[in-house]
Amino acid sequence: MTETAPRPTLEAVAARAGVSRATASRVVNGGDGVRRPLAERVLQAVEELGYVPNQAARSLVTKRHDAVAVVIAEPETRVFADPFFGLQLRGISKELTAHDTQLVLLLTEGRDDHARVGRYLAGGHVDGALVFSLHLDDPLPGLIQRAGVPTVFGGRPGWSDGTHGIAYVDSDNRGGAREAVRHLAGLGRTRIGHITGALDQTSAADRLDGYRDVVGDADPRLIAESDFTPAGGERAMRELLENRPGLDAVFAANDLTASGALRVLRERGLRVPEDVAVVGFDDMLPVAEQTDPPLTTVRQNIEEMGRLMARLLLRGLDRDDPEEGADDTPRSIVLPTTLVRRASA
Amino acid sequence: MTETAPRPTLEAVAARAGVSRATASRVVNGGDGVRRPLAERVLQAVEELGYVPNQAARSLVTKRHDAVAVVIAEPETRVFADPFFGLQLRGISKELTAHDTQLVLLLTEGRDDHARVGRYLAGGHVDGALVFSLHLDDPLPGLIQRAGVPTVFGGRPGWSDGTHGIAYVDSDNRGGAREAVRHLAGLGRTRIGHITGALDQTSAADRLDGYRDVVGDADPRLIAESDFTPAGGERAMRELLENRPGLDAVFAANDLTASGALRVLRERGLRVPEDVAVVGFDDMLPVAEQTDPPLTTVRQNIEEMGRLMARLLLRGLDRDDPEEGADDTPRSIVLPTTLVRRASA
Repeated sequence: MTETAPRPTLEAVAARAGVSRATASRVVNGGDGVRRPLAERVLQAVEELGYVPNQAARSLVTKRHDAVAVVIAEPETRVFADPFFGLQLRGISKELTAHDTQLVLLLTEGRDDHARVGRYLAGGHVDGALVFSLHLDDPLPGLIQRAGVPTVFGGRPGWSDGTHGIAYVDSDNRGGAREAVRHLAGLGRTRIGHITGALDQTSAADRLDGYRDVVGDADPRLIAESDFTPAGGERAMRELLENRPGLDAVFAANDLTASGALRVLRERGLRVPEDVAVVGFDDMLPVAEQTDPPLTTVRQNIEEMGRLMARLLLRGLDRDDPEEGADDTPRSIVLPTTLVRRASA
Repeated sequence: MTETAPRPTLEAVAARAGVSRATASRVVNGGDGVRRPLAERVLQAVEELGYVPNQAARSLVTKRHDAVAVVIAEPETRVFADPFFGLQLRGISKELTAHDTQLVLLLTEGRDDHARVGRYLAGGHVDGALVFSLHLDDPLPGLIQRAGVPTVFGGRPGWSDGTHGIAYVDSDNRGGAREAVRHLAGLGRTRIGHITGALDQTSAADRLDGYRDVVGDADPRLIAESDFTPAGGERAMRELLENRPGLDAVFAANDLTASGALRVLRERGLRVPEDVAVVGFDDMLPVAEQTDPPLTTVRQNIEEMGRLMARLLLRGLDRDDPEEGADDTPRSIVLPTTLVRRASA
């Protein structure tokens, strides 16, 4: 759970509006008999303080909404184009359903809509939130903190100095990347390139760090920035071949990127793995098996990550005081990865 | 909009609990000063009547949640496997975002979870609902009606005697099917088979009717029931070839099914279109262009259907009295289809 900012109270609303608590209560709870100018002052105070009027009433009746929001910090088009998100949602859906909790997926067209997502989270419609694919300069974490909903993140959040008080589920991205690059080095490759993911995400930054752990201070021409998409992988592969025509291996930050890189290598008449060995990341099926040649890659259990995110959140909600943190439930989980060898390296 | 059942009132709660309205109000709105046995009777009445306590308070402050639920009556796994749903959501997302309204996608593992979806819809978390891929015996329509949320359906609902008072957006499935089968007949084909969709959905039933409009009372061995999936298309094609080895054309109820049928035809060494001509439905890209050979199909504008569903709902919400229906806004829209010729027929 994130540390939650205290919610504004009805007393604070009354004080700001300059009315009694009883009057504020009557306005907020839809009662009659309050003069219009007074009612308007109360409503203005509600707006200004971000007071959520229904929380007490609702939680008195049900304690819970039995609903959890899922926020994927990507445009809706990417959510449906990248199977990563479908897999993570599958794990989340199974776990929430097993606890008779409704999965509420908040879709957006992009970052401009995140303020609206924050308002929905603050509106008392869900018990908590699962948030993934965060980018560094995204306003979502701040909005979520202000909304005061318990949250578990998918992937280590990158905006914080540390991870104190922040619950997340991640894969060992750095360790997995090290294993991929060591495998390439073990094949005798000496000019190993890297196609990065979106570097404003910790998963991509950690994989780049893992690459550097093995190759040391690499020739910068061996590193091409990309964005986790197949088209981005094609662009980055062309860039690498232009800057370092002699490279003999590529570690791509995910399988979709690797699939784009493989297409460009074939187009240029380069043989994989003979001329250029390629390793991906994810073990995304069927992609990783259907590339030509099938892809050697670092497997992370994406569905399990989703399941664990949901489990961590629900356990937090089940504790008497979710802010207490004094039980044995881990606040964060980092899953190991494994190298899966196919034909590409 | 569906006709809405009246919501239980606070007066009804008070009467059932045997307390005054003021006492019921105090309990429901989280106030103090009510003796515990009394409070418990009120809460029990709230539960029994399904009273939603926060509606008045919330709508007083904001009038609106600025959120619309989308319910796809399929398991989450199919939602992410079938690009139809992604396209429809794209249209919905664009339209809702243009009106600064949050898209709230309620995912489930299957029909067993629809009661929970109904509870969420009834809980006062959204202004309305967009519902698609309904199956005939699904409890959702009844649950939605009881929830009392304005709703627009994707696809003509099949449970009702008529469509009085029900808003929906659909394609001209029957007309499109007729055009597909007439095209096959125009190529001189005389033994035209049909692979149906899921026949508990009106889209599949209407396409079968369109097929029958052209071929008359077809040999029942020319019709194979299926389910809109590629694997279902493979099974149905095998069944057709077994029952009517001489068939010379197939009209498949959608492109995914057609892609499965094409695989089986190739596997059996039958040439398309020379031996068996194939027409699909949807013009789902890239599927329809990437089959071997590329697919002749009936195009429906799926993204536009989603956009119009959202528009119809938002217009209904903007009317002063959404139940009045006395303006010019159409309550339902049926979009035309067009035949797209590629190589398969």
